[in-house]
Amino acid sequence: MLKIIPLGGLGEIGLNMMVFEYGDDVFVVDAGLMFPEDYMLGVDIVIPDMEYLKGNAHRVKAVVITHSHEDHIGALPYLLREISVPVYGTAFSIGMIQHKLSDFDYPIEADLRTVRPGDTLDIGVFSIRFIRVSHSTVDGVGLAIRTPLGLVVHTGDFRINHNSIDGMITDVNAFALCGKEGVLALLSDSTNVESKGYTISDESVGQTLEQLINDAPGRVIVALFASNVARIQQIVDIARKKNARVVINGRSMELSVRVARELGYLSFPEGMEMGLVEMGQACDEKVIMITTGSQGEPMSALSRMAEGNHKQIRIREGDTVILSSKSIPGNEKAITAIINSLYRRGANVIYNKMADVHVSGHAFQEELKLMMSLTKPRYFIPIHGEYRHLVHHARLAVETGIPKERVLLAENGQTVLFDEGGARMGNVVQSGRVLIDGKGIGDVGRSVLRERRILSEDGIAVVTMVIDQETGVVLYGPELISRGFVFWTETGHVLDDAQCVILEIVEDVGPEVSNRVEIIRARLQKALRQYFYFTIRRRPIILAQIFEV
Amino acid sequence: MLKIIPLGGLGEIGLNMMVFEYGDDVFVVDAGLMFPEDYMLGVDIVIPDMEYLKGNAHRVKAVVITHSHEDHIGALPYLLREISVPVYGTAFSIGMIQHKLSDFDYPIEADLRTVRPGDTLDIGVFSIRFIRVSHSTVDGVGLAIRTPLGLVVHTGDFRINHNSIDGMITDVNAFALCGKEGVLALLSDSTNVESKGYTISDESVGQTLEQLINDAPGRVIVALFASNVARIQQIVDIARKKNARVVINGRSMELSVRVARELGYLSFPEGMEMGLVEMGQACDEKVIMITTGSQGEPMSALSRMAEGNHKQIRIREGDTVILSSKSIPGNEKAITAIINSLYRRGANVIYNKMADVHVSGHAFQEELKLMMSLTKPRYFIPIHGEYRHLVHHARLAVETGIPKERVLLAENGQTVLFDEGGARMGNVVQSGRVLIDGKGIGDVGRSVLRERRILSEDGIAVVTMVIDQETGVVLYGPELISRGFVFWTETGHVLDDAQCVILEIVEDVGPEVSNRVEIIRARLQKALRQYFYFTIRRRPIILAQIFEV
Repeated sequence: MLKIIPLGGLGEIGLNMMVFEYGDDVFVVDAGLMFPEDYMLGVDIVIPDMEYLKGNAHRVKAVVITHSHEDHIGALPYLLREISVPVYGTAFSIGMIQHKLSDFDYPIEADLRTVRPGDTLDIGVFSIRFIRVSHSTVDGVGLAIRTPLGLVVHTGDFRINHNSIDGMITDVNAFALCGKEGVLALLSDSTNVESKGYTISDESVGQTLEQLINDAPGRVIVALFASNVARIQQIVDIARKKNARVVINGRSMELSVRVARELGYLSFPEGMEMGLVEMGQACDEKVIMITTGSQGEPMSALSRMAEGNHKQIRIREGDTVILSSKSIPGNEKAITAIINSLYRRGANVIYNKMADVHVSGHAFQEELKLMMSLTKPRYFIPIHGEYRHLVHHARLAVETGIPKERVLLAENGQTVLFDEGGARMGNVVQSGRVLIDGKGIGDVGRSVLRERRILSEDGIAVVTMVIDQETGVVLYGPELISRGFVFWTETGHVLDDAQCVILEIVEDVGPEVSNRVEIIRARLQKALRQYFYFTIRRRPIILAQIFEV
Repeated sequence: MLKIIPLGGLGEIGLNMMVFEYGDDVFVVDAGLMFPEDYMLGVDIVIPDMEYLKGNAHRVKAVVITHSHEDHIGALPYLLREISVPVYGTAFSIGMIQHKLSDFDYPIEADLRTVRPGDTLDIGVFSIRFIRVSHSTVDGVGLAIRTPLGLVVHTGDFRINHNSIDGMITDVNAFALCGKEGVLALLSDSTNVESKGYTISDESVGQTLEQLINDAPGRVIVALFASNVARIQQIVDIARKKNARVVINGRSMELSVRVARELGYLSFPEGMEMGLVEMGQACDEKVIMITTGSQGEPMSALSRMAEGNHKQIRIREGDTVILSSKSIPGNEKAITAIINSLYRRGANVIYNKMADVHVSGHAFQEELKLMMSLTKPRYFIPIHGEYRHLVHHARLAVETGIPKERVLLAENGQTVLFDEGGARMGNVVQSGRVLIDGKGIGDVGRSVLRERRILSEDGIAVVTMVIDQETGVVLYGPELISRGFVFWTETGHVLDDAQCVILEIVEDVGPEVSNRVEIIRARLQKALRQYFYFTIRRRPIILAQIFEV
C-alpha cells in the first residue's frame, strides 16, 4: 500500500513537506519553513511538526529537495538533527543547503548528494526521476515517482515557459511521457490558481527592465529575491550591453551569485563587478546595483538607503530604484514605506503596479491545466497552497475533466492511501506548526504567545512589597514599576492613587490571617486591574511580589 | 494672504485634515483618524497632532466635513474637545457624527449644522459652495472655496460616475463652472492615482452581484463596509426582485442602515427585514444577510461564523459568502484566514480576485485627469495619499498640461501661501501623529512603543530578592518570574542556573559596600542579559527588585 502524507504546505503557503511510504520504505520531499504570522510575536521561523517522522525514523531513507527556496529547505537542519539520512537535490539546491547547514546553531553532519534532471534515484521500492521545472529560482525539479502501484508526479513549485534566460525550461516532454505511461496521481502546485491565463514571459520582463534601465538618467538600483538567478542574469546582460558595471549587494545576494557562478549558472565576468566604495566614484549611468531588500526588510541595505542610514550609498535625485519582485502578503506596508522614503529622497521608483518588472514563479490557471493535460492523472491532489487555493485547484481539475471523486482534497496530516482498489483517505497523523524563537524549539506555545500579546498591547505593572511577618507593617514598598505603559493620565499620575489602593488592602487584611500574602496578592491584583481599566482603559499584566520577613 | 496648511492626509492614507486661513478667518476641512501601523503595538487609533489649531483656537471659525468615513471624521471628538466651533456637513455625515460623539468617552457639546450640495456657506472672508461627489459612502461633497484671491477647489474623496444607485453623481457641471470662472488651485484626491483607466461602474458590480446571488444554491451572506449605502441598496434591490428577505448584521451596519433610512437615502421596506433568529427558520434561498466583517476583524460576526463560534448562524455546505469590498493594506492575512475557514465549513466564497464584486470609491487616472480638465486650475496640490501617490498625481498633472512649477507637492505641516504674486511654500507648522490608547491621548510615545516591542518579542523576567542590610544574607528569593517566555531549553530549565548566577553576584559584592543594592542590580541585569542570550538567544526586559531590610 502506498501512503502519501502531507506534513506541511497543504493549508498554507510555505512549510512544504510531503512523506511517501510503501511498507518500510519512506522518503520525504522537501522540508520547508514558514515565516511567522502576525500573532506569533517574537517568533523567528515556523517549521512543520515532525513528530510523525521522529516516530518512524528507522524507516526514513532519504530527503529529496525540489528547489532551494526557504519554504522547501528551511526546516532541513531541524529534520537532519533528528534523522540522519541522505539529502538529494540539484547542484544549486545542494549548494544553498551546504551554506544553510554551516550557518546553523548546532553542528549538523549531512550526507548531501547532487542529482541532475533526467537522473533516476532508487529509494527502496521507489524509483524517482527528476524532471526539470522552471521556477523563480534556478535548478528546480519536479519528481516522477515510480511506485509499485504506478507513477506519482510531484510538480514541486513550477511554471511553464517556452524559453528562458537560464535555459531551464519546464520539461513538458518528460511530463507528457509520464502521461503516456499512465499517472496514478498528480500532486500539483496550487499557489497561483486564482490567477487566470498564463504567467507573462521572462523575456517581456527583461525587455521592460532593459527599457527602464536605458531610460534611467543616473544610477540604477534593482531589488529582487537573491534566489532569482535568472533575473540577476537578465540585469547583468543589460549592463553588459550598455557597458555598465554591476554592484552585488546584500549577504544572501552575494551567496546566491557566488554559488550560481561556481556552477556556471550565471555568466557574470569578474571584471564587470564593482564594489560599493568604487560605486561612489563611478560614472552614474555606468552603474547598476543588484540588491536584496525588496520585501522591506528593516535591516536590509535598501531599507537603510531609503532611510538615509547607509554608510556608502546616499540616494539622490536622478537615481532609479526598481523593485523587481512581488510583495509577499504581510510585507506590503514595509515595502510601501520604503517606496515613499525613496521618493522623498528624490529617486524614481518603479514597482509592479507601474510596470511588468516581475513574473511569478508559480503557474497560472492555463499552465496548471496544461500540467493536467500532459500527465493525464487518474487521481489529482492539489498541494502547496492555503485551503482556498487547494479548493480552487480541485475545482479547476474537475473543470478540466478529472472526475470529482478522484480529486482528493487533503490537508496537513491527512494520509492518502493507494492500493489496487484505488485511492482513499486514511488516518490523520500528527502535524502542525512548531515555533522557533532563538534557540527555543517549540517552547513558545499558546500561553506564551498570549502573554506576549497582552504585554505588547497593554504592558505590565510589577508591584513589590515587603511586609513584617508579625506586625503586618509594610517594611518596604509598595513599589510600582511599569513597562509598556506609563502611570499617567490627563488628570495626573495614577501612581499615587494606585499605591493608596494597595496600602488600603494591606491594612484591611490585617496581620492575623494565616495565608495573608496570598490573600493580599489576589485582592491587590483584582483591585489594580479594575483601577487601571477605570483610569486608563488598559489591562496590563499585573505581577505582585510580596514578601514577609 | 491665503494659507493652506495640511495637518494630515498628505503623506499617508487617512488622518485627513486641512486648514484654510485668510487673516483671522480660519476653518478646517475634515478631522480624520488613521488605524495604527503594525509597530504601534496596542494603539487603538491615531489622530493628527492638533497643536497648531490649539495655538490658533481663537481664530478657528468652523469645521467642514466632506463625508462620513472615519478617516475624515474620526478625530472630530478630539478636535471639538479643544476647540468649540460649528461643524458643517451633509445630512448623512452629520447623522454619523452625532452617533460618534454620543459614543465618545467624554461628553462633547457640538453645534452640528446640516448643509446640502449647492448650498453656500460663509465663513469670514470665505464662501464655500458644496458640490456633490460620488464616493463609496453616501452624501459626499467636494468644496468650491471662494477666497479673496480666487477659487480653491477641494475634491474631498471622489470618483466620477455617470449613473449611480443612490442618484449621487459627481456634479461635473458644477466643477466645470468652477473651471469657467477660473480656479486658483485644485486640491485633488490621490488615493488611486496608480490605477490606470476608469473605475468600473456601480451597475456592473450590481449585475455581477445579482448573477452571483441568483446562482447561489442556498443562503447568501454579503460582507461589505457599513458606510457603503449604495451597495446595501443594490443588495436590497436584488433581494426584492427574488422575493428574498434581508438580515442586517453588525452594529455599524445597523447604524448605517438606520441613518440612511431615516434620511430617505435607502429604500428598504421594514417588511423585507428579518432578524437573526428568524433566519434560522427561513427558506435558504429566500435569505440574504448583509454584514460587517469584510476586513477580517476578529470580533466581527463574519469572523465568528467562519470560526464556528457564532451563536445563531452556522455556516454550512450550500452557503455563499460574498466579500463585496477591497482588502485594506495590512488586513490581507486576516481576510484570507476567514476565507479559508469559510471554505473549510463548506461555503462557497467569492471575493475580488474572483469576480468584480467591488468598485473603489476613489477616482482612477482618467477620472483624475477629467477633474483637472474640468477645473483648469492654475495651481495643483495633490492631497489624500502616501508620498508616492502625491508624486504620481503631481506627474499626472504635469502630463495633463499643468506647468511643473505650478504643481505643489506639500506634505503635512507644509504651509502653502497664495498672494497676488502667486503661490509659494511657506513655513512648516507642527504636525504629526498622536496615538490614542484607551483613555490615553499621546502618552504612548517612542519609549513605550519600544518597550512593547521588546515585551512582545522577548518577554520580561522579574527578579525579586530581599537582603539583610547588615549581614548581606539573602532573606528571601531570588525569585524569578517570566512573562512572554519560559525558563526552558532543550537541556533543561535555565531557572536554577540563573538563580546561581544571581547568588554568586550577591556574595561577590559582599555586605560592606555602601550602595550595594544598586551595584547588585546593575551587575545582575548585565549577567542575566548575557545568560539568557547565551542559553536561549533572547533578550527579555529584566527588572530587578532588590530590597534591604
